[in-house]
Amino acid sequence: MTLKVYLSGEIHTDWREQIVEGAKALDVEFSAPVTDHDASDDCGVAILGTEENKYWHDHKGAMVNAIRTRKGIAEADVVVVRFGEKYRQWNAAFDAGYAAALGKSLIILQLPEHDHALKEVDAAALAVAREPVQVVEILRYVLTGKLPG
Amino acid sequence: MTLKVYLSGEIHTDWREQIVEGAKALDVEFSAPVTDHDASDDCGVAILGTEENKYWHDHKGAMVNAIRTRKGIAEADVVVVRFGEKYRQWNAAFDAGYAAALGKSLIILQLPEHDHALKEVDAAALAVAREPVQVVEILRYVLTGKLPG
Amino acid sequence: MTLKVYLSGEIHTDWREQIVEGAKALDVEFSAPVTDHDASDDCGVAILGTEENKYWHDHKGAMVNAIRTRKGIAEADVVVVRFGEKYRQWNAAFDAGYAAALGKSLIILQLPEHDHALKEVDAAALAVAREPVQVVEILRYVLTGKLPG
Amino acid sequence: MTLKVYLSGEIHTDWREQIVEGAKALDVEFSAPVTDHDASDDCGVAILGTEENKYWHDHKGAMVNAIRTRKGIAEADVVVVRFGEKYRQWNAAFDAGYAAALGKSLIILQLPEHDHALKEVDAAALAVAREPVQVVEILRYVLTGKLPG
Amino acid sequence: MTLKVYLSGEIHTDWREQIVEGAKALDVEFSAPVTDHDASDDCGVAILGTEENKYWHDHKGAMVNAIRTRKGIAEADVVVVRFGEKYRQWNAAFDAGYAAALGKSLIILQLPEHDHALKEVDAAALAVAREPVQVVEILRYVLTGKLPG
Amino acid sequence: MTLKVYLSGEIHTDWREQIVEGAKALDVEFSAPVTDHDASDDCGVAILGTEENKYWHDHKGAMVNAIRTRKGIAEADVVVVRFGEKYRQWNAAFDAGYAAALGKSLIILQLPEHDHALKEVDAAALAVAREPVQVVEILRYVLTGKLPG
Amino acid sequence: MTLKVYLSGEIHTDWREQIVEGAKALDVEFSAPVTDHDASDDCGVAILGTEENKYWHDHKGAMVNAIRTRKGIAEADVVVVRFGEKYRQWNAAFDAGYAAALGKSLIILQLPEHDHALKEVDAAALAVAREPVQVVEILRYVLTGKLPG
Amino acid sequence: MTLKVYLSGEIHTDWREQIVEGAKALDVEFSAPVTDHDASDDCGVAILGTEENKYWHDHKGAMVNAIRTRKGIAEADVVVVRFGEKYRQWNAAFDAGYAAALGKSLIILQLPEHDHALKEVDAAALAVAREPVQVVEILRYVLTGKLPG
Repeated sequence: MTLKVYLSGEIHTDWREQIVEGAKALDVEFSAPVTDHDASDDCGVAILGTEENKYWHDHKGAMVNAIRTRKGIAEADVVVVRFGEKYRQWNAAFDAGYAAALGKSLIILQLPEHDHALKEVDAAALAVAREPVQVVEILRYVLTGKLPG
Repeated sequence: MTLKVYLSGEIHTDWREQIVEGAKALDVEFSAPVTDHDASDDCGVAILGTEENKYWHDHKGAMVNAIRTRKGIAEADVVVVRFGEKYRQWNAAFDAGYAAALGKSLIILQLPEHDHALKEVDAAALAVAREPVQVVEILRYVLTGKLPG
Repeated sequence: MTLKVYLSGEIHTDWREQIVEGAKALDVEFSAPVTDHDASDDCGVAILGTEENKYWHDHKGAMVNAIRTRKGIAEADVVVVRFGEKYRQWNAAFDAGYAAALGKSLIILQLPEHDHALKEVDAAALAVAREPVQVVEILRYVLTGKLPG
Repeated sequence: MTLKVYLSGEIHTDWREQIVEGAKALDVEFSAPVTDHDASDDCGVAILGTEENKYWHDHKGAMVNAIRTRKGIAEADVVVVRFGEKYRQWNAAFDAGYAAALGKSLIILQLPEHDHALKEVDAAALAVAREPVQVVEILRYVLTGKLPG
Repeated sequence: MTLKVYLSGEIHTDWREQIVEGAKALDVEFSAPVTDHDASDDCGVAILGTEENKYWHDHKGAMVNAIRTRKGIAEADVVVVRFGEKYRQWNAAFDAGYAAALGKSLIILQLPEHDHALKEVDAAALAVAREPVQVVEILRYVLTGKLPG
Repeated sequence: MTLKVYLSGEIHTDWREQIVEGAKALDVEFSAPVTDHDASDDCGVAILGTEENKYWHDHKGAMVNAIRTRKGIAEADVVVVRFGEKYRQWNAAFDAGYAAALGKSLIILQLPEHDHALKEVDAAALAVAREPVQVVEILRYVLTGKLPG
Repeated sequence: MTLKVYLSGEIHTDWREQIVEGAKALDVEFSAPVTDHDASDDCGVAILGTEENKYWHDHKGAMVNAIRTRKGIAEADVVVVRFGEKYRQWNAAFDAGYAAALGKSLIILQLPEHDHALKEVDAAALAVAREPVQVVEILRYVLTGKLPG
Repeated sequence: MTLKVYLSGEIHTDWREQIVEGAKALDVEFSAPVTDHDASDDCGVAILGTEENKYWHDHKGAMVNAIRTRKGIAEADVVVVRFGEKYRQWNAAFDAGYAAALGKSLIILQLPEHDHALKEVDAAALAVAREPVQVVEILRYVLTGKLPG
């Protein structure tokens, strides 16, 4: 059994690398959005031509990024959504809702101080974790039945 | 033609009332989450029994609220999601993602200063409005073909 | 908003009547399986001809009953499944699984002593109640936003 | 043609091993829930943190297990559900209902004394077997057209 | 509860009238194909222009008839398919397969001498009846829980 | 039986009025895009604010119009697509493809000189008509079984 | 591109072998029902135990066969249904209807004398062929763009 | 991650070759309709027999071609639709609508002078490109996160 896992959300820490490294012995295929912030912001105009209006500049980029994110979520068995300390992170919550409506198994990786604000998101999740290592342990258990320790 | 419209998001201003009032001559059926903040937070424990742990207190409530919000979104033709000035509003973005995955027509009601942060949400929308009256005008146009002014 | 509610499971107490009576002021349409035990067991052979073999006697009846139960669940917004004190009640658990796979909002009405045995069923539910009145209170809250007391 | 088969239900006898061994010459990919009873009960708290309340202890585990079971059922061509002699086995009946709603080919492996209690489950099945070897024979026939003997 | 019932198949006896008459006190909405044989054969060319080639003459008619039959089956809760004594009746078997794939509750009305030839069709059905009155009795039981006699 | 019919395509002749008038005695609910050409072109900027760039001017309007057209097509039983004498009419062909993918019954109303260019569209249709009256005759036949003349 | 092709229908001539042999240089994966008539009739009782009643004897077999045929059709890109000279062949027409409802590309292989009786089936097909070699030619054209001769 | 890309539309220039060549280092699987104009027009009659009537000649070919195009679009992650300078190209717009209804990521490759006429098509797209190289750059970015230059 191969588990397909999409890693959505925060792009300013190395949580994805920690999970991928921790799960390297497991039969998991990871996917993720483009995590190069500048490329992600500018991909639309860089490829399809500049826009004077900042709104359309952003819009063209967000739509090009959607080609990747929609495929990643649609093909995933498990969608992990990380909410970090900073920024509004509405795209993370949007991905969680998108994944929930498709019936994906959701794991939310969040800080305790966000618990109340994330309660509707968590209500659609199968696990709420605090640390990337817990996500690795879930993936290991799901694939092998082995618990940590 | 009756248009079913779900009004998601911010609950601290009267934007829903403005839209419902503005659209009262139109063939629209509105639905919305429970907007009584305290009832929404406490519905789980008030009905199903108290929880010592705040996380499960919130969880029970969020799940009871999901009975209403999922039906509202699932039956809607149009989902309007309002992002206000305050709070994290992850539930609003979650609803937008949920609605997008179900193929609903999305209208986002947002402040200009949030445009960049909402670009992924907007990329799934058919309209981005600034004022409730614009939502009314869209509903009127969709139903009657009449433009304002 | 009309809420369609299917009442599945135990047929030996008056829990359905309590809920229907309690919710009579609400905009709810209830449906349920045939709760006349003998009719439910014998409907297949009574209409379509006797069977010598008890297995096929049961089978013919279960299939005729499925015409009603599948429609009831498929059209419901909310499926309430009651597990009582006696019998194996595999049909109740089957209905819960069937409803879960269709994405219905599940409410389980169960005894505390069954909590462990029902944990997989509860994991797919949005509420776990102990008394019929709690189901009524959930329906009232979902429809009106009003909490008890 | 590869047949994907999910083996749900009773975990206290070696029926899964009998089927896997009997079908080893066939093009079948088997999957199953975690069958280590203790790991299955405790996986939630072992990974995500302890709970004082036994209900939530169970709940966290059941939700983590759901990541595996939902994928197993969703990807299966055939779901075999075994009802054993002991316990309530509501999770087995839940899986049968879940699989039925997804249109999976269901095979039920059951004792004659349970026939009446399982009649609604059997009504959704394509085969009712008494012994694991019969499941192997069905898989062989489906894949090769060869009958036993 | 209103039951939507589509009556497919044989058009040379009054079995539809018997069922509609028998069920007149029940909350059933019936639909059916056009049962005027000549109109059904010629509708394509009568409306859209003659064809020299008999194959295309038939084809145009079959496609116009499909507008009605597909809607009737798609909206039905129950599809009754009657196989009569004469003709090849491949359209009846086609409708049964079409309805089965859509998950409709199938009732087959057939002669004992056709049992072997219809076994694959019957394997997808919830009831196999011999007489129109039995179909009425099933509809009454499904809607009211009352058995005949 | 009520037939829901969406009238897509050409907006410069009175073909919609002819069909609606011809079918006024039938149980048909018609829907259609906004056929006021100027309103349709400008609805986006008129409601949501002007755009300097003509592309985005058009885009905003096309997205607002999509709220209406997607609902109309999604709810229709029959989608009639009219190709007229002038203009590129790619929106008509787009609607036909959209409707075909949703499994709608398609009727194409076209000129003989367009037959070759429309062959892929026609291959997904159940009828190809030349005159609005033929569409009326199809609707009458589908609803009543009566042929013209 | 690999094309998955299910070969349904008549089992008394070598039409399947002709197509498989003719297409051996093409990237096609064929599947089919069990074509050993006796095994197909008796598989249910041979594996799951005898039945005194011939109807249930047939029923058990038809349900076991359905495990294979439903998977074959569900996974196919193209379903070829052959109607031969003899027998009622309602299972062939049932498969055609089943495949049509799933949106499969249907090819019907039929005799000219059956054209009128098969007109409803043909109305759901993308090709009507007379000889197995024509099916091979269609598969070759679909995969390579090459026409015969 | 492999990206499946279907290249629909104009067949008179080498835009497909440019994209396939440009993307040869990327993990992309391309598919496309048969682009041999004569073969595409005549495939129906060449394989299935001549037709005197030109309409049916075209129809038989368009239906055979649909076997390929429907599979190509249904399996694609991304559908690129090219509108060229000449011809009516209703099949291209039809494919765009078909792909949109299936939720595919659409890229439209179009000339500036067609922007107004294509506005409804573009409203369903995630990118509007002018040159084949831009499509290559989008595919590279989606797969690798790298921008041109």
